[in-house]
Amino acid sequence: MALISPSRRLRRTPFSNGVEHAGVKAYTVYNHMLLPTVFESVEADYRHLKEHVQVWDVACERQIELRGPDATRLMQMLTPRDLRPMLPGQCYYVPIVDETGGMLNDPVAVKLSEDRWWISIADSDLLYWVKGIAYGYRLDVLVDEPDVSPLAVQGPKSDELMARVFGDAVRDVRFFRFGHFDFEGHDMVIARSGYSKQGGFEIYVQDSAVGMPLWDALFKAGEDLNVRAGCPNLIERIESGLLSYGNDMTDDNTPHECGLGKFCNTHTAIGCIGRDALLRVAKEGPIQQIRPISIEGDRVPLCDRFWPVYADGKRVGRVSSATWSPDFNTNVSIGMIRMTHWDAGTRVEVETPDGMRSATVHEQFWN
Amino acid sequence: MALISPSRRLRRTPFSNGVEHAGVKAYTVYNHMLLPTVFESVEADYRHLKEHVQVWDVACERQIELRGPDATRLMQMLTPRDLRPMLPGQCYYVPIVDETGGMLNDPVAVKLSEDRWWISIADSDLLYWVKGIAYGYRLDVLVDEPDVSPLAVQGPKSDELMARVFGDAVRDVRFFRFGHFDFEGHDMVIARSGYSKQGGFEIYVQDSAVGMPLWDALFKAGEDLNVRAGCPNLIERIESGLLSYGNDMTDDNTPHECGLGKFCNTHTAIGCIGRDALLRVAKEGPIQQIRPISIEGDRVPLCDRFWPVYADGKRVGRVSSATWSPDFNTNVSIGMIRMTHWDAGTRVEVETPDGMRSATVHEQFWN
Repeated sequence: MALISPSRRLRRTPFSNGVEHAGVKAYTVYNHMLLPTVFESVEADYRHLKEHVQVWDVACERQIELRGPDATRLMQMLTPRDLRPMLPGQCYYVPIVDETGGMLNDPVAVKLSEDRWWISIADSDLLYWVKGIAYGYRLDVLVDEPDVSPLAVQGPKSDELMARVFGDAVRDVRFFRFGHFDFEGHDMVIARSGYSKQGGFEIYVQDSAVGMPLWDALFKAGEDLNVRAGCPNLIERIESGLLSYGNDMTDDNTPHECGLGKFCNTHTAIGCIGRDALLRVAKEGPIQQIRPISIEGDRVPLCDRFWPVYADGKRVGRVSSATWSPDFNTNVSIGMIRMTHWDAGTRVEVETPDGMRSATVHEQFWN
Repeated sequence: MALISPSRRLRRTPFSNGVEHAGVKAYTVYNHMLLPTVFESVEADYRHLKEHVQVWDVACERQIELRGPDATRLMQMLTPRDLRPMLPGQCYYVPIVDETGGMLNDPVAVKLSEDRWWISIADSDLLYWVKGIAYGYRLDVLVDEPDVSPLAVQGPKSDELMARVFGDAVRDVRFFRFGHFDFEGHDMVIARSGYSKQGGFEIYVQDSAVGMPLWDALFKAGEDLNVRAGCPNLIERIESGLLSYGNDMTDDNTPHECGLGKFCNTHTAIGCIGRDALLRVAKEGPIQQIRPISIEGDRVPLCDRFWPVYADGKRVGRVSSATWSPDFNTNVSIGMIRMTHWDAGTRVEVETPDGMRSATVHEQFWN
């Protein structure tokens, strides 16, 4: 692997000092910001995540704040998910699409109040789209990137660690809900959410200066819980079927292709951009879809480009994320497969950089 | 330095195989794509760039294509530079601003014809802004990212190398103009431009499959010219005052602050977004501006965050890019300095990670 060249353009986070002190070995870049990818090793980090508790610097999940009388109207324009049932205190996973129904991002929307929202974004400058729409429609709303940096606490001991720092009430926060908690006089929005299926929370830190004090408090409180610095883990996220925008889907794909049709209430999401295109897609159904695929043989190489998927010599899809899973004793991967071959149990071939491999299409992810 | 974790999300380019074969040592990420930063060493690459000729994989300068009857109207909405004098065959450096005059990108606009433009972008998803504006205004224009990947040829022997591959006519292409040339039956748009002041060209390769054949042809033709793989060079670009979006300026800054007031014809650029705000700025002038700053003492450390600049104990600006210059025997840097201290010769202090340094504000960059 090559080195990453530091520059101001690849932004550091409020937690970077802690991440470096913890011995980060590799990064990716996400929303023009450093996102750690490896501490001890991907496999050791994975094992630890499934057994203990980790603190993740996910400040790169930047927030877009919508504020003003048209905030809710604008939020509904952005997504085919019907937001009318949503109350302040809730988080919704929302596909964001352009006018043709192509995915621009797959963020979590955080409803702070009727006139104030955060959009916790995946890796694309969604801010530019939101600002463009707000400007083009002359909406009465402020749109910007506030000084808010999420810090995730993930793993089976998350509740215990969080209760020690924020009090037992944090245990009562339900999945995809959030509450307000105090840390040394600072208001912290804390949601039960995160990019793993091992349980945990995301703390929306609203002032960069509080970043390292909070980081240190979590490590101090969790010493006997074996707390460690961690990061979204490639193995765990593929086992769990957590999609990654830019890896597993791009603006070429509709939400329906990405298995996100259940988050599209296109008929009732009145005013959403892309509605005409998505009503058509919903009627006909997608012709390709995200599927878990197990790949036979030894550990696959790093997947840094689409790997074509074939059946009977014809191309029927592609794999976009793949790795060896120690717990399931197979190579796990995420593919986009044509409808002719997406049924569970279908045998296909995946062209990896070190040769063709036999593989099987599944319906359910592993975790 | 840490490693970079490969993934499909950090896109490879049509030239990545060539870059790897040439022994790339480090990358940055730019527009979700790999951009090489070091081959032999930053200093050896610099010396070679100034004496010979290099081939640069700058595919990460992604293109936004505007096509249709409203293409020119949309292009003018995006920038305060007056585009009326611009003819097909010309390239313009164009600040792109939001409604408050904040910089969203600083691309090169390439006018292919009255109804077809490319915008060769710096590091932000400008596509989202352009699509949002086109949609919000219901413009009659197609906006997308085509399969176009720039390959740069830079250095004093560029004309000679290019003439060997494309014929002597390429020598007649004037600065910031382009022409159409043939390579093995493929139309190549070739401009005299590039992100160095050592002279050279950018070839807009319109089909990924032609990438490696062209790369190989350039290396074969240039063997006796000592052609090498290169990349935008940190030392040379600071010496030359070539700004980097995300490093030296962000959406907090107006073009006037960035020294790009000369590219703003805000009075006559009728219809441009941000006009109201920029007319105000043009009237009052900016209160801070980009300046070259020489920093005394030994080689400065890597600049990966803003370094505060002080005078008489008060903060008067920040440095965003800095490095040691062998040719000018000083640390060269790019700063943003308040008007009270921006006059040439002003003495200031820069707070680097290894201590306070004496420094001097200049008016002209070094190259």
